[in-house]
Amino acid sequence: MIDIESIDRMIKRIRAESPLIHCITNTVVQNFTANGLLSLGASPVMSDAPEEAGEMARLAKGLLINIGTLHDETIRAMEAALRSANEAGVPAVLDPVGVGSTTFRTKAVQRLLTLGRFTVIRGNVAEVANTIGRSLPIKGVDGGTVSRDIAVDVARQAARALGAVVAATGPEDVVTDGERTIIVQNGDPLMSRVTGVGCLLGAVVAAFLSVEGDPFRAAAGALIAYGIAGEMARETLSQRPESGAAVLSGAYGIAFLDALDALHDGAIDRRARWTVPGEMTSFNI
Amino acid sequence: MIDIESIDRMIKRIRAESPLIHCITNTVVQNFTANGLLSLGASPVMSDAPEEAGEMARLAKGLLINIGTLHDETIRAMEAALRSANEAGVPAVLDPVGVGSTTFRTKAVQRLLTLGRFTVIRGNVAEVANTIGRSLPIKGVDGGTVSRDIAVDVARQAARALGAVVAATGPEDVVTDGERTIIVQNGDPLMSRVTGVGCLLGAVVAAFLSVEGDPFRAAAGALIAYGIAGEMARETLSQRPESGAAVLSGAYGIAFLDALDALHDGAIDRRARWTVPGEMTSFNI
Amino acid sequence: MIDIESIDRMIKRIRAESPLIHCITNTVVQNFTANGLLSLGASPVMSDAPEEAGEMARLAKGLLINIGTLHDETIRAMEAALRSANEAGVPAVLDPVGVGSTTFRTKAVQRLLTLGRFTVIRGNVAEVANTIGRSLPIKGVDGGTVSRDIAVDVARQAARALGAVVAATGPEDVVTDGERTIIVQNGDPLMSRVTGVGCLLGAVVAAFLSVEGDPFRAAAGALIAYGIAGEMARETLSQRPESGAAVLSGAYGIAFLDALDALHDGAIDRRARWTVPGEMTSFNI
Repeated sequence: MIDIESIDRMIKRIRAESPLIHCITNTVVQNFTANGLLSLGASPVMSDAPEEAGEMARLAKGLLINIGTLHDETIRAMEAALRSANEAGVPAVLDPVGVGSTTFRTKAVQRLLTLGRFTVIRGNVAEVANTIGRSLPIKGVDGGTVSRDIAVDVARQAARALGAVVAATGPEDVVTDGERTIIVQNGDPLMSRVTGVGCLLGAVVAAFLSVEGDPFRAAAGALIAYGIAGEMARETLSQRPESGAAVLSGAYGIAFLDALDALHDGAIDRRARWTVPGEMTSFNI
Repeated sequence: MIDIESIDRMIKRIRAESPLIHCITNTVVQNFTANGLLSLGASPVMSDAPEEAGEMARLAKGLLINIGTLHDETIRAMEAALRSANEAGVPAVLDPVGVGSTTFRTKAVQRLLTLGRFTVIRGNVAEVANTIGRSLPIKGVDGGTVSRDIAVDVARQAARALGAVVAATGPEDVVTDGERTIIVQNGDPLMSRVTGVGCLLGAVVAAFLSVEGDPFRAAAGALIAYGIAGEMARETLSQRPESGAAVLSGAYGIAFLDALDALHDGAIDRRARWTVPGEMTSFNI
Repeated sequence: MIDIESIDRMIKRIRAESPLIHCITNTVVQNFTANGLLSLGASPVMSDAPEEAGEMARLAKGLLINIGTLHDETIRAMEAALRSANEAGVPAVLDPVGVGSTTFRTKAVQRLLTLGRFTVIRGNVAEVANTIGRSLPIKGVDGGTVSRDIAVDVARQAARALGAVVAATGPEDVVTDGERTIIVQNGDPLMSRVTGVGCLLGAVVAAFLSVEGDPFRAAAGALIAYGIAGEMARETLSQRPESGAAVLSGAYGIAFLDALDALHDGAIDRRARWTVPGEMTSFNI
């Protein structure tokens, strides 16, 4: 389904081509998202005005729509950008942050899904469930944890209902197009303690989509690479003489950007860790 | 009035319960505020649209309203959120950034104070004075320094006029409910050279309010813990082999987030430093 | 044209006077811009509402208008601030981010240039060219590279057409008022891999304008000091024991803020590097 060589190739192509990724994302994480894309080798643009979002999306190689801080004006920008991206064949990623927590978010997501097509939906399991109207508990913008079986079931159902690849993240990540499914096991618990690590992932998936035509492989590759960066960040910090044993959240956010910058040195090979539903144990490749 | 054990208990409860804190704050510091709350163990949500702010505030355990980058639309979100928070019994913190510097800010604050109740007002001494129409010089968003006597007088007057606990920050911080008053002496000068350290404090106070029913004790505990984090940040940086004697503002902002993350290890006990008005000397506990 | 002593003097005056710099800038870089100004010793304020931008600009010693994330409401704030700044004699800097990439941006820039006067225009070469309707290829918000001859020609033409000092940045930076021209050669390639380093420069130029009456010398001094900070950031990072040879983009952004904070220790003297058009080689002073 996915192999190390093709993930390496995607990363190399992103660095070589520096694809322009148009992000309409929440104001909390715009800076971190732009820096993360630059660290990875891509080129961010953050236009979120209805007057220009359609024109900008057409110039891009990938589009991210993230509803974290939604406004009436932003919704109109999202609609214009999605329409343009669909017309121009630009792959689009939706991150339905906090969908289900307020009516405003739920309606905005429903409207976007009616208006156009997304190539990948990226959210935690609760957000993915809420996107298709299947209820799971949700607290603010962070979901709780569910069993792997439920996560896989929700992700597959969403993928089929929405005709998109779904990347449902959590302690383990599920990537599925409704037929093929893998469980990505790379990552680090601190990734959920830094604002924007989840949101940046949507932009990273868009960058992978810009260089890989199969959206399932692009999303799987992005999530494996991303989880590995999360592990590399911890390793770097634990080498700092002054930090002792503690790896803390402030420094971790910066080390994570550094890890994305360092991803090109063949780091994928030794570390990739995934499995498939039904397998009892994970395996390293 | 306040004791070490209860501050420790508040911090532990925040980490255990991860209270959702709804922040309507300025776009300059949204990222830093979200990261600071996560470092402390709380859970941030940053919704600032009038269409959903009321619904979101009801889900939260604490609300922060910060007027740093005010817009007409944000004011409407603030009003909806404040009304909801008051109805639902969610404690609300106001940070009147730069009030008095423009008519727009002054009117917005007056209107909010008419519309609803705040549990705590957090600002520098000039902002606190301007909130009650008492003039002190103010330059942009940073206040100057005044004597302790004036700071205490302004804070007490504001607390009585507004029926709220006032936390007036500066080289020393004054916390008062109009009757009880303490001067918090923890902190570090670099805290004022990193954008958002003042603004994040409002969110941290909201997190403390969510776990402590006495707002004076919650605010005092928050300011002591926060000042201690500021001291810990300097200590960590001065241990770095490459930095020599210099502790600089960029690294300090990150080290401050790390210090909030490290606050749980009993750091309060050895370091807490406060006094009361009228005492000539401070004392350590 | 410019000398080390006067750059040192500008930096010292900024630190002594802490000039208030009013920034109407994009939401991606507001935090980094505010922190950069604080690190340098200036005092940022980020008001971008039409209701107060005019009033705020009058209180400031310098104004930055950056169109990176343009909205209809922000344009109205920019217009009010520019008018006020012009009336009050406050120097104004324009950063026309991505002008030429969408009609919305191009029209906004044209309208601002009709409405008022800018003291300095700061952009990459492609943006400077697009500001005067001279076409060069532009991809998103980053320009490509052109020869020094073209860069100088474009910058001079723009300076004359707009009656402003132009700072056209790239691998080398061109600063010109149409008559005097220098090529600043300080800097580091990583500066273009951290979001906001270009945008912060506009704010730094505004701070230098607040303490130096000759805008050409202020802009040249700002760019030399800024490039030197970029070099200092790399040096600090390469001393870290855990980093080995790698200097990576996440840590670089923080080290850059630290370098601005450390700029006062006479660092300019040993490092300043510029030349003039027509010279074949650069020279150190």
